Amino acid sequence: MTEITEEQARTIIDTALQTGADKGFKPLSVVVLDAGGHVKAFLRQDGAAPGRFAVAHGKAYGAVMLGMPGSAQMARAESQAYFMSAVNGVFGGAVVPVPGGVLVEADGRVIGAVGITGDTSDNDAEAALAGIAAAGLTGRA
Amino acid sequence: MTEITEEQARTIIDTALQTGADKGFKPLSVVVLDAGGHVKAFLRQDGAAPGRFAVAHGKAYGAVMLGMPGSAQMARAESQAYFMSAVNGVFGGAVVPVPGGVLVEADGRVIGAVGITGDTSDNDAEAALAGIAAAGLTGRA
Amino acid sequence: MTEITEEQARTIIDTALQTGADKGFKPLSVVVLDAGGHVKAFLRQDGAAPGRFAVAHGKAYGAVMLGMPGSAQMARAESQAYFMSAVNGVFGGAVVPVPGGVLVEADGRVIGAVGITGDTSDNDAEAALAGIAAAGLTGRA
Amino acid sequence: MTEITEEQARTIIDTALQTGADKGFKPLSVVVLDAGGHVKAFLRQDGAAPGRFAVAHGKAYGAVMLGMPGSAQMARAESQAYFMSAVNGVFGGAVVPVPGGVLVEADGRVIGAVGITGDTSDNDAEAALAGIAAAGLTGRA
Repeated sequence: MTEITEEQARTIIDTALQTGADKGFKPLSVVVLDAGGHVKAFLRQDGAAPGRFAVAHGKAYGAVMLGMPGSAQMARAESQAYFMSAVNGVFGGAVVPVPGGVLVEADGRVIGAVGITGDTSDNDAEAALAGIAAAGLTGRA
Repeated sequence: MTEITEEQARTIIDTALQTGADKGFKPLSVVVLDAGGHVKAFLRQDGAAPGRFAVAHGKAYGAVMLGMPGSAQMARAESQAYFMSAVNGVFGGAVVPVPGGVLVEADGRVIGAVGITGDTSDNDAEAALAGIAAAGLTGRA
Repeated sequence: MTEITEEQARTIIDTALQTGADKGFKPLSVVVLDAGGHVKAFLRQDGAAPGRFAVAHGKAYGAVMLGMPGSAQMARAESQAYFMSAVNGVFGGAVVPVPGGVLVEADGRVIGAVGITGDTSDNDAEAALAGIAAAGLTGRA
Repeated sequence: MTEITEEQARTIIDTALQTGADKGFKPLSVVVLDAGGHVKAFLRQDGAAPGRFAVAHGKAYGAVMLGMPGSAQMARAESQAYFMSAVNGVFGGAVVPVPGGVLVEADGRVIGAVGITGDTSDNDAEAALAGIAAAGLTGRA
């Protein structure tokens, strides 16, 4: 398995949103990127602020382009802020290094990433992991 | 009705993709933008090239930001190429002025736009119109 | 009520500037954005520095795109500077996360934002709130 | 007289919009820039598309930065498209070289520019000239 499919992307989004609804999260926005960091699918729930695509995308994009989930990027930002700032620069400002950016793996290989924004960063990551698991894939948050 | 909803966006995408499948179109990518030009939903079918988000977005973004569907933008580009090129510049290069960028209207007001890419521009527009109609809204291509 | 109107924007600007004059604030610059973050109206008073449009815009733009008023953005910047820096990056550097970026709400929904710059951030926010109230709308600073 | 004032900017905008209303133009968006190309005032009428600030700004910005009104820029674009395209590039894509970008002069010196978009380019310019004249200034379209 090498590419994230439309069907997997739909399952990830639907389960992530259902998880948020079940747990009382604020309205979520969910992006699914492929292994090249390109957008496969996205959905922004009613009530989410208009700029949420960019934030969700930034979480997932950093994860897949660096091969580091959001938690690892955050740790690096906490310990060496200028490094993550510089990394962000080389990606045109498109990286948001916090939890909620979750790598998607199959057979031990990264096949994409999910980015979620709307609630706390940890809750965003929880919803992403639930979606990825429902698609039969492995999430690394 | 003033904002394009998640439910409408899902209907638009699903119907547009089904239309493409019924008519034998190539794999499509469909974006739904709100009245401010912000991404509400997107889906790229399996087999579509990785850069299709940007093309679909460019068709819909130009439509909503200018209040002109893709066909009108193309006509202007044909008659005054430097004008549409300059307009594109003020929007950061994010405008793709061809059919397949379709305004979504409700009660006579623009509430968003749909951008589709993958087959011919005219077929892209046809799939968008089918999706918009299925959501009970009015498309202007 | 779903869109911020020209008449409301005029009232917001005129009242904000009058508030500044009454309280002896420095020359102010006031922008009014719609619910999609697009400029509806702007006025820069005589004596204000030439770059004030970008600052006023940055305060209002961050508020509406994130659904967070300037005070909340500032709190997040104080506690997690790299996060707000990264968020700014995904919006092309167009976010100024301090008070003076005030959400405009009607019937509990965000319909736009006001950004003011020229005096202290708190005084800027005070002028914005006065303008928003005069237009019969609710401000969240 | 060296700087365009708030009072002049208000007169320009109000008269331009009234001219459009009197003549049955579509909803207009009007920007007033100072002699340095910086935004002094802007107003977008209800019903105008959300992206109209960028287009109005592009008309006025090109005029003041080049010292050429929109009609002269258009003539150059018609005769030497790659030149205006290149000029646009050095200004970051922010120039829209068509009528509706009108220089504002006082005592033979350029003190700013007005940019209008919404109707035909010629009608946009006509509304700008009416506004500039009402402010006791000289327009060059």
